Amino acid sequence: MSDATFQPPAGAFTRSVPIRFSHSDPAGIVYFPHYFNMFNGLIEDWYGEELGVDYSKLILSGGSGFPIVHAECDFRVPSRMGERLELTLIVDRVGRSSLGFVIVGHLGGVERLRARIITAMIALDTGASKPLPEDLRASVEAYRLRSAGR
Amino acid sequence: MSDATFQPPAGAFTRSVPIRFSHSDPAGIVYFPHYFNMFNGLIEDWYGEELGVDYSKLILSGGSGFPIVHAECDFRVPSRMGERLELTLIVDRVGRSSLGFVIVGHLGGVERLRARIITAMIALDTGASKPLPEDLRASVEAYRLRSAGR
Amino acid sequence: MSDATFQPPAGAFTRSVPIRFSHSDPAGIVYFPHYFNMFNGLIEDWYGEELGVDYSKLILSGGSGFPIVHAECDFRVPSRMGERLELTLIVDRVGRSSLGFVIVGHLGGVERLRARIITAMIALDTGASKPLPEDLRASVEAYRLRSAGR
Amino acid sequence: MSDATFQPPAGAFTRSVPIRFSHSDPAGIVYFPHYFNMFNGLIEDWYGEELGVDYSKLILSGGSGFPIVHAECDFRVPSRMGERLELTLIVDRVGRSSLGFVIVGHLGGVERLRARIITAMIALDTGASKPLPEDLRASVEAYRLRSAGR
Repeated sequence: MSDATFQPPAGAFTRSVPIRFSHSDPAGIVYFPHYFNMFNGLIEDWYGEELGVDYSKLILSGGSGFPIVHAECDFRVPSRMGERLELTLIVDRVGRSSLGFVIVGHLGGVERLRARIITAMIALDTGASKPLPEDLRASVEAYRLRSAGR
Repeated sequence: MSDATFQPPAGAFTRSVPIRFSHSDPAGIVYFPHYFNMFNGLIEDWYGEELGVDYSKLILSGGSGFPIVHAECDFRVPSRMGERLELTLIVDRVGRSSLGFVIVGHLGGVERLRARIITAMIALDTGASKPLPEDLRASVEAYRLRSAGR
Repeated sequence: MSDATFQPPAGAFTRSVPIRFSHSDPAGIVYFPHYFNMFNGLIEDWYGEELGVDYSKLILSGGSGFPIVHAECDFRVPSRMGERLELTLIVDRVGRSSLGFVIVGHLGGVERLRARIITAMIALDTGASKPLPEDLRASVEAYRLRSAGR
Repeated sequence: MSDATFQPPAGAFTRSVPIRFSHSDPAGIVYFPHYFNMFNGLIEDWYGEELGVDYSKLILSGGSGFPIVHAECDFRVPSRMGERLELTLIVDRVGRSSLGFVIVGHLGGVERLRARIITAMIALDTGASKPLPEDLRASVEAYRLRSAGR
């Protein structure tokens, strides 16, 4: 796997995650399920810090749920304890009831991993999908535009 | 999401995983990164119990590594504490240095999730991919054939 | 740390846990928080398999909670991937609203770790402790007696 | 359990940890093994940020290991998603080869949990304890004094 460069788009939400002992496998690199946990944390922070939405209320109240229906990641370059991995969140797609995120992990301008996460809004009682609230959709769409890069 | 039925192919490796309190999120369903952890455990058990390969030696010795280069999953039906999720491992592709797995999670004949995991064999010193050992390749290929489901 | 021998009392509930890649730290031994996760799983299995109590109902319904109020462990001998650690559950104390467990991890008659876990029954609305249901208390007390060893 | 107040000693190392969806159990509070993971992260940060010691080198190189030989915690007040728990590290005891830490979790001046963690320095080849390096001991002892809270 050759190194791919990555520069976060201006306006994109980026947070760094310290790579810890607890993430490290016997080969000294991050055990891959931990990355999915980091992605969920990034989305959580993005809701709160970028959109000003209370994620815990969003996912836990009002009879709605926000399950992840698809998650995938290409792991290109491993990360090691002591590093700080930069994670950038890009909104890929705003659907009727679903949101598609691309999350890029990078360090020093080199792309280390690239994930795609899709969440769907559902009614908790029936499990059926339901449309995103209009204010949430508008807020996400505005973020998508201001972080679209060029 | 409509229910999809799933019947494991004869000869396919299936193990059940108890869904625990520790897997459960505030909505009472499995928090998705735990599934990836379960998949890794399934592959580990498959190496040992189905192929008779010592996974810890395979991945930790001889200067070779076996990182996961791609992982993805479609989550169709949530699982809850107290259930036992059946996980079936299917070998999708045997490459020069990579192995592709499909893992299906099911219960009562209903498919709940479907994952795709790709591992690659690398030299630990250079990080470059290296061909799978011939005996391992033969062993995996034999499993692929006997579990092909026809 | 010198080796201490351990023989589970007759009638004590013992389950083996496979030590996995996912448990292993960069030194190749189990990262200690995983043990606490294993202890919780053991208690869960003990309720279901030994007492015939539905743990998910016990802890999630009826307005009661069963939080862990104290947890401790002495780690004597590390465990490594590929081993199966035996965990034995001993009921140490049956209080008005609390239960005290001792969990011993052992392999080949050698004690590897010894934990003490205390759970308390509380009312979820007030957080105040409440007495254990009589049938549960009787069931736990019966287990304590039949596993008291001698 | 009545509320206990806690004020970190001047000079004590304190970091806040966001309580996340991933930490939360079906009752909406932190699943207790996650706390032990947080404690390990706090110790890691303390080594790096307070003592200026490279923790990964300390625990992974030079033929020495730094296993945790004892961990315990009293959980008084649960924590919930969206909160930021403050964790304060106090050095309790500097032994020949062991270090004793007290970690207090608090929020708004109320003590929520109190942990005790003991690590020991060992030779990786024999597993025998070995004395702490003098410069490390001096550094830890200096911290102990400047954070002694009087």
